[in-house]
Amino acid sequence: MQNRCISTNCGILSASSVVGALEKSGPLGSFFDLHSADDKFGQKTWEKAEAEMQRLAFNTALAKGELQEGDLDAIFAGDLLNQCVGAAYGLKDFNLPYFGLYGACSTAAEGLILSSLLVSGGMVRRAMAVASSHNCTAERQYRSPIEYGAQRTPTAQWTVTGAGAFVVGESERSLALIKGVMPGVVIEKGIRDAANMGAAMAPAAADTLLRFFDATGKSPDDFDLIATGDLGYEGGDILCELMSLEGMDIRRVYNDCGMMIYSRDTQDTHAGGSGCGCSAAVLASYLLPKLASGALRRVLVMGTGAMMSPQSIQQGECIPAIAHLVCLTAKEEEEWKLC
Amino acid sequence: MQNRCISTNCGILSASSVVGALEKSGPLGSFFDLHSADDKFGQKTWEKAEAEMQRLAFNTALAKGELQEGDLDAIFAGDLLNQCVGAAYGLKDFNLPYFGLYGACSTAAEGLILSSLLVSGGMVRRAMAVASSHNCTAERQYRSPIEYGAQRTPTAQWTVTGAGAFVVGESERSLALIKGVMPGVVIEKGIRDAANMGAAMAPAAADTLLRFFDATGKSPDDFDLIATGDLGYEGGDILCELMSLEGMDIRRVYNDCGMMIYSRDTQDTHAGGSGCGCSAAVLASYLLPKLASGALRRVLVMGTGAMMSPQSIQQGECIPAIAHLVCLTAKEEEEWKLC
Repeated sequence: MQNRCISTNCGILSASSVVGALEKSGPLGSFFDLHSADDKFGQKTWEKAEAEMQRLAFNTALAKGELQEGDLDAIFAGDLLNQCVGAAYGLKDFNLPYFGLYGACSTAAEGLILSSLLVSGGMVRRAMAVASSHNCTAERQYRSPIEYGAQRTPTAQWTVTGAGAFVVGESERSLALIKGVMPGVVIEKGIRDAANMGAAMAPAAADTLLRFFDATGKSPDDFDLIATGDLGYEGGDILCELMSLEGMDIRRVYNDCGMMIYSRDTQDTHAGGSGCGCSAAVLASYLLPKLASGALRRVLVMGTGAMMSPQSIQQGECIPAIAHLVCLTAKEEEEWKLC
Repeated sequence: MQNRCISTNCGILSASSVVGALEKSGPLGSFFDLHSADDKFGQKTWEKAEAEMQRLAFNTALAKGELQEGDLDAIFAGDLLNQCVGAAYGLKDFNLPYFGLYGACSTAAEGLILSSLLVSGGMVRRAMAVASSHNCTAERQYRSPIEYGAQRTPTAQWTVTGAGAFVVGESERSLALIKGVMPGVVIEKGIRDAANMGAAMAPAAADTLLRFFDATGKSPDDFDLIATGDLGYEGGDILCELMSLEGMDIRRVYNDCGMMIYSRDTQDTHAGGSGCGCSAAVLASYLLPKLASGALRRVLVMGTGAMMSPQSIQQGECIPAIAHLVCLTAKEEEEWKLC
């Protein structure tokens, strides 16, 4: 599998996004389904707010797809919180087989990969992939509570308050087709700066992308868009550079969900957005409708994750990273073969 | 899928176990592959020791199966540490597609389920499922560092220092067959006592078991052993009671890996063992060889997990739990149909 792109025969039937106030006021604000003006979603703690975002995203994706809970056979979900309690608590009232994932910020893509493999294999009819992050839960868990007002470095990214949910199922009814998937390999290149996740994750993204082109015989020109999850400005630049060194220019079709979700001019988020919710919300709300309308025809989405913990960094470890790839096309590309 | 047992057509080709000193001196001590007399495995921190246990378990399972890294197509791994760094760091040097899981103490079973679904579906040739826990990492993360000598309640369980790894692949060469799987549903019945995980997890185990018998038409009498992962004495009792109330007596064939791994007479672990490594090490070292020899013919293994975090408990939440079921048989039972 390592050098093999796995063909899948399924699609995304429905998707939803839930975001916070900063994301709502950003360039993609009008595309998101739900938001909370105070980022609390009616809850008393940030962690409960994040769980509520998962619940809302799940329910909204079901409703938008005109589906019932009983139409699903499995949930794949995760988040950045210790013990992934955003997903566990947010989705505990749904009476469905539950697979908890930890892929750091690559979780949405990891869930999409596993959902599409099980749907394509006929083991489940439909599965829901859900992922979330919340700026205030992430800041206090990974760095320090936002009330401390800690100064951020230029390479630091801003954890997105956002959640996305995706129903994966039969290709006939879908908004976009999932043509194939390529799971990531853990890559660690010596980066220790937890305020520069982009640099830690870019080599993993390059690794997956190179393996993908090698396995499929495709090139960047075959795609309208190659979107990474949350490399941000710093990591995105490094990825393009790494690809150039391998003789592949991706700049023409490259973008990053962490660069799309905030305005660089008016929203000071330093190196861009990050977090499980970044790629999940941008894919669900912005990219998927473009695939559904045919405005985008062939898209590679790569969820990127940094797999360290605050404790592993304190103990002097480097940051291992991973990038999971999902190849999506418009329905018009039904005949187009990936691998 | 919720009320469906999914048939699988694969087996466990090889398995390994790595444990600490207390586990080595327990009743199953002679069955484990590797151990460390000081629980440190040559590392400077407990977290690095746990990562090293994952690495050792992975390598040992490969070696015992006379396999190379390139014979595998995927890794499914997780642990109890924040951000699952035991698995991420322990396995980062293996150049293989990596799926990070968080299923609390059900992680080994979750990994076995996903491995067997992908192998049976032909998407991967072979996959490795790995899970670990370490008493000293878990105590300081979930409760308090062991140096504090905090007093434990009678229902508290002892986190196993252990790791287990399983190669899932073609049934022909396997030690035991994986006949079918039934993923768990998240169940929460109002238990808030983090020192009584058994009580929180027992209803989830009962739910999965009842759905399994309902879906397959089988009964407890069809099996030599029904083994839960880590309900311990307290939770195991509650499970048997809950099953009795539904008219099913499982006591004759019931056991729990957390009750097997320590001696109740000579090792004071209160309500028994727990942790991802508990079911992983007991299954790999003790149950699987009995299936391979035919001493056990039909076994249900249920990984049980409590999905809370210290923070969710502090915020007044209850403990959601899950139980993932894997149905294993000896090769002599090849003709026996599960579902």
